[in-house]
Amino acid sequence: MASTLDTLRRDYPWIQTPLVVGAPMRLIALADMAVEISKAGGIGFIGAGTDVSDLDQHLDKATSLLSSHAPSLPSSNSTLPVGVGFINWGADLPLAIQSIAKYRPAATWFFAPSSLDSLKEWTSRTRQASPSTRIWVQIGSVEEAISIVQTVRPDVLVVQGTDAGGHGLAQGASLISLLPEVSDTISSLQFADGYTGPILLAAGGIVDSRGASAAHLLGASGVVLGTRLLASTEANVSRGYQSEVLRASDGGQTTVRTKVYDKLRGTTGWAESHNARGIVNRSYVDALGGMSEEENRRLYEEEVKKGDEGWGEQARMTTYAGSGVGLVREVKGAGEIVREVREGLVGLLGGAKALL
Amino acid sequence: MASTLDTLRRDYPWIQTPLVVGAPMRLIALADMAVEISKAGGIGFIGAGTDVSDLDQHLDKATSLLSSHAPSLPSSNSTLPVGVGFINWGADLPLAIQSIAKYRPAATWFFAPSSLDSLKEWTSRTRQASPSTRIWVQIGSVEEAISIVQTVRPDVLVVQGTDAGGHGLAQGASLISLLPEVSDTISSLQFADGYTGPILLAAGGIVDSRGASAAHLLGASGVVLGTRLLASTEANVSRGYQSEVLRASDGGQTTVRTKVYDKLRGTTGWAESHNARGIVNRSYVDALGGMSEEENRRLYEEEVKKGDEGWGEQARMTTYAGSGVGLVREVKGAGEIVREVREGLVGLLGGAKALL
Repeated sequence: MASTLDTLRRDYPWIQTPLVVGAPMRLIALADMAVEISKAGGIGFIGAGTDVSDLDQHLDKATSLLSSHAPSLPSSNSTLPVGVGFINWGADLPLAIQSIAKYRPAATWFFAPSSLDSLKEWTSRTRQASPSTRIWVQIGSVEEAISIVQTVRPDVLVVQGTDAGGHGLAQGASLISLLPEVSDTISSLQFADGYTGPILLAAGGIVDSRGASAAHLLGASGVVLGTRLLASTEANVSRGYQSEVLRASDGGQTTVRTKVYDKLRGTTGWAESHNARGIVNRSYVDALGGMSEEENRRLYEEEVKKGDEGWGEQARMTTYAGSGVGLVREVKGAGEIVREVREGLVGLLGGAKALL
Repeated sequence: MASTLDTLRRDYPWIQTPLVVGAPMRLIALADMAVEISKAGGIGFIGAGTDVSDLDQHLDKATSLLSSHAPSLPSSNSTLPVGVGFINWGADLPLAIQSIAKYRPAATWFFAPSSLDSLKEWTSRTRQASPSTRIWVQIGSVEEAISIVQTVRPDVLVVQGTDAGGHGLAQGASLISLLPEVSDTISSLQFADGYTGPILLAAGGIVDSRGASAAHLLGASGVVLGTRLLASTEANVSRGYQSEVLRASDGGQTTVRTKVYDKLRGTTGWAESHNARGIVNRSYVDALGGMSEEENRRLYEEEVKKGDEGWGEQARMTTYAGSGVGLVREVKGAGEIVREVREGLVGLLGGAKALL
């Protein structure tokens, strides 16, 4: 384990371990959140998603926020101590590479490429444009883990369990079985080129230090928070969205993996293999009840006009969130959330022996 | 934590902690498996399921196997040091109570009652028939946990995550978010009658000491193995079934929660809310492809005649298994499996501090 932690500390010298990462939630995790997370000793990500047209602005803002912080965060080879997350099938590669070359983020997080060849191109061009930028790839199955590790030699593999909010594999296991199997499988691979395999980070269903410590025992070297950060002051979400996250409980029953919300929002482009977990609302119930997509979308578009009132169990705006949403009960600063989870982790892992 | 462990050791004095329990898998976990698990310091369960007509025979056999073991296992108030699991909606209550009164198992595990009132009756009649028999109830959501704790005051709540094999809630979260939320919610309940709340055990996706230790950090006082024990020498399954369990990997992709297998096997009676996780095979793929239930069942019934050859990815016999099936790689004795997981738990929880 020491060597994995050493690698993390070398590549991201500002972090404190155990490592807590902020997921690159598209449109929601922007410069504010990413910087607060990195300042708190985690690794913050800007969720560029499918649209990189304003990525330079976000990276500019992150640069400026970071430069006004004293003392400045130590980083590896002067990379920017935040990462950028891409939804590769939809993101413009040449534009993205320009931003990566210009701002040199500490990490790029790749997810859902249109093909393995495309991922290979993203990876090699990123490495060329910014050799110190670390390559993170998100996977949701053992099969994906094997093919991606063999093809692109990622620095980090983000293992996402099916409890995660937002997009991921439509079908999958949770971290409790997925992470140990990915870990065993990756460890069994042989590499001829000196590559020693990726660092495994865990995502999906982790909202507090209990989930985070469990993930460490399952084989992760750090954890990713998504849903928990929806209820952070820096989350770029409407008050209605955030209230819904605080309201929902019993997430296994009140969230669902579906393509319904993508359809309503006109998000085309996701592969058949992927869908997203969100809180059950009227749109979903109506879709399940057989309402036509056209009518459902018309009602959705009317709801959009209501603003914050458009969110809720009986309303129609989409609230992507993971099955751990019931454990999110309070809005806090993203930095405070990261520190809390990390300190909780130290307590739980340090005290685990007492459970015997 | 000490008081929970004290309660466990008082109620089941033969156990060794951390506690490993064998799931009452219907038709699969019978006297042989249950006794081997209890002899190894776990708690073994006979899976009576929906049919209690031969329960006396199984309990007779368990009694005889246990009496030939020297030294005899210490038990609480001379109860039989194994448990019995019922699928309550289908089990005959008066017959079950006769067996419980006669054999006094250390625990009864209730699951999927037709109503809360019915569960109440099962519980009160069990307590009347055998006051020292502990009441375990399996739940899959926070809502179920609350209503059951408030209604029947169970000694143990088995919290089942959606990764579990076989039957459970069709929709649900995995242990990583479900267990902490159940734990928080139960802890917040107030009881006027001196009841201090149930002990929480974790089930669903746990196949080795990594999952087991994760469950402990999520709030469990012990763990339940199901899928892992399908590959035990004592499992009452065909060689074909067991080979399929050993073959399958990447369980998030190769198992699925569905009602298809129940329909093919003519298992009617499960509520709409429940389905079962099994390994994807030809029957499932054909059902998904639109084959009529009649045709699919006809093909299934032909497959039954093939014996062990009827199992496999391209075959039609049902292999219920959880998403952790890819971590099951070897057939071992049930007692050895229990000891291995327990010893692994001691190592992982004892050494967790080194992960920091």
